[in-house]
Amino acid sequence: MRVTGVVVEYNPMHNGHLYHLEQSRASTSADAVVAVMSGHFLQRGEPALVNKWARTKMALQQGVDLVLELPAAYSAQSASLFAYGSIAVLDRLGVVDTVCFGSESGDIRPLQALSNILVEEPPLFKTFLREELQKGHSYPRAASDALARFAALDPAIDSELAQKPNNMLGLEYLAALKKLNSSIEPATITRIAAGYNQETITHPSIASATAIRKATFETGIETAENLLPAVSYRVLQEEFAAGRGPLSWENYRQALFTLLHRATPDGLREYVGVDEGLEHRLLEAALRAATVHELITLTKTKRYTWTKIQRALTSVLLGLTRREQKELSVADGPPYIRVLGFTGRGQAVLRAASSRASVPILTKLPKEKPKMLEFDLRASRLYAQGYSARQPGAELWDITRPVQIENW
Amino acid sequence: MRVTGVVVEYNPMHNGHLYHLEQSRASTSADAVVAVMSGHFLQRGEPALVNKWARTKMALQQGVDLVLELPAAYSAQSASLFAYGSIAVLDRLGVVDTVCFGSESGDIRPLQALSNILVEEPPLFKTFLREELQKGHSYPRAASDALARFAALDPAIDSELAQKPNNMLGLEYLAALKKLNSSIEPATITRIAAGYNQETITHPSIASATAIRKATFETGIETAENLLPAVSYRVLQEEFAAGRGPLSWENYRQALFTLLHRATPDGLREYVGVDEGLEHRLLEAALRAATVHELITLTKTKRYTWTKIQRALTSVLLGLTRREQKELSVADGPPYIRVLGFTGRGQAVLRAASSRASVPILTKLPKEKPKMLEFDLRASRLYAQGYSARQPGAELWDITRPVQIENW
Repeated sequence: MRVTGVVVEYNPMHNGHLYHLEQSRASTSADAVVAVMSGHFLQRGEPALVNKWARTKMALQQGVDLVLELPAAYSAQSASLFAYGSIAVLDRLGVVDTVCFGSESGDIRPLQALSNILVEEPPLFKTFLREELQKGHSYPRAASDALARFAALDPAIDSELAQKPNNMLGLEYLAALKKLNSSIEPATITRIAAGYNQETITHPSIASATAIRKATFETGIETAENLLPAVSYRVLQEEFAAGRGPLSWENYRQALFTLLHRATPDGLREYVGVDEGLEHRLLEAALRAATVHELITLTKTKRYTWTKIQRALTSVLLGLTRREQKELSVADGPPYIRVLGFTGRGQAVLRAASSRASVPILTKLPKEKPKMLEFDLRASRLYAQGYSARQPGAELWDITRPVQIENW
Repeated sequence: MRVTGVVVEYNPMHNGHLYHLEQSRASTSADAVVAVMSGHFLQRGEPALVNKWARTKMALQQGVDLVLELPAAYSAQSASLFAYGSIAVLDRLGVVDTVCFGSESGDIRPLQALSNILVEEPPLFKTFLREELQKGHSYPRAASDALARFAALDPAIDSELAQKPNNMLGLEYLAALKKLNSSIEPATITRIAAGYNQETITHPSIASATAIRKATFETGIETAENLLPAVSYRVLQEEFAAGRGPLSWENYRQALFTLLHRATPDGLREYVGVDEGLEHRLLEAALRAATVHELITLTKTKRYTWTKIQRALTSVLLGLTRREQKELSVADGPPYIRVLGFTGRGQAVLRAASSRASVPILTKLPKEKPKMLEFDLRASRLYAQGYSARQPGAELWDITRPVQIENW
């Protein structure tokens, strides 16, 4: 059985994701597709539009065979840590042959050459990185520019690829595969298929999920209907009708402002991602901002990007301090694989994995929980505070909800 | 100039308060009445129905000449600490001749005899207190019962007075006067005047403020109109219309549940008032409760009274740890007197006090703020998170609002 892995957030799962899923399956001749999916807090540092169970349903009903949860300790973090956690989950399952991700070029070899630089960090690259950071750029921008400068010295490498932001996550996946010494083969597909009809199906990019969320918040989910597969649209409608979304940072306004207003600069600096004076800017902005959007707008600078600030706010909301992050041992990779749901083929994957996975596969939660799993539960309890209608028992759904089985 | 002090919360100021104010003025032949008033978090461990500026307006327009703020470090604390802080403010002003409080009997002498026991803590009283606590009673109940048992040994003392809960705060005021070695004379008036018409004017007790709040939340402020003086009614209507009330714990639901859901038992136990296993009960209850009312109901036991739990929740919301309470040096008394407002006569009091007060009198905030004052500002910022309609700049009102001058 050929198994292909993908890294997803599905926030929400749209036509572009569907296209990527089908391309991944076809181009790797996969018998089954395994998705590792962020839980409730996402890579851009945002709460998910709808909860992970709803997003799992979308995935399973639209072609994913097995959904594994990326632990919260990795999901709202830098591209590098996010990629490392995601690839580690797929690697530890023990049965994934290929990991397939989208890129601008659709060719894996030039990306490999670039990612080697990220892994090996040659002294000259580090010098370039320091220089770019000194210009006041954000870390991702500096890394991308330094990578391009270093790569330009080698005519065999297409240095322009480093500066396309959509490639950076791909480079990090490749770097993670190397760091983990994984036997999983990387593969990439182009993000836009030739002849693909832009008018009826959205551009399969992160931006289009952004556009769908924007439309949902501003004019209602109805105006995004033609951007979504029928299954996603129905699941979203159900969730919204039940008061479980659409969620954004504004749903956590009181919690977040309370945490900021009771914090000292020193206390705030203990949270992961709050550094380099960000604590003072956040505390100042909190005194003036009426919304979380305003808070971020007032805090933003060239160095503190929107995403960096949102990730820092996620750490504040979840109470993730540097000390706790150390205790979570993120560098060791996740010590468990959490199953959110599976199809019939997904169950076959799980059966094969049962003797090959290098960490326990959890279809229900053990009594003795690793710290990293406790942190996932905390993230879920806190996510539940944002629902517009009270959901009885929502703080315990991680424990009470059975693993989802679909398309049997 | 004869100056009489009163300790108030005015949550809200009702007919009973008005009666007590007039009785206090008359019975002590006062030229001016100074009220020390809790700010935003009150002795029962609750956020105030409306903010301290609105409550100051009620007080000044209805006969109080000078309103001083009881620092938040004292306001949501045990009867003993609340009384100590309040009496210390009046004492440090340097010009208060008499402090007048309501009691069941209206006679100060038997209360003096009882309060001496609280100050001196004879070994036998302490033994009784330990025994009563061992029965599983709350601290206030145990203290009251131990006091009654000890007093019963002395036929000169009316031991029954110890068991009337409305007397306990009075006993603590007397104890505070003694601890502070204050020259202020205590006086008491009976809580219910003979022949007082129960049908047109409410019973002047804490219970009636409770009844007014209950009516306000359940059936609207209109149904409480005949229980309130016209000024209070108008101020409350204005505040509510502007989205600044009525506030209760439910207005802080997300903030409070977020703080609980991200806390560990050890972390929770650091907060003032969270002790003796209360942390586990709170964390368990938070997983099941839909409202703060349910949270407290699920947490309550014979030992953990409603009030004790609410005070503990106030510490959690305000982030008041035992360590910070130590840093605030509450036992030394407030290092400043914060003026919220005054009338013409109040200004004369302030003028007289300017050369006699033992700590700075603040009519505006200094640049260098004592820790205790910083804590007041934090309490105000956090209180502002409960307004139903966003109030621009509300987090800075402590700094931007001038002291109130009324009835000039």
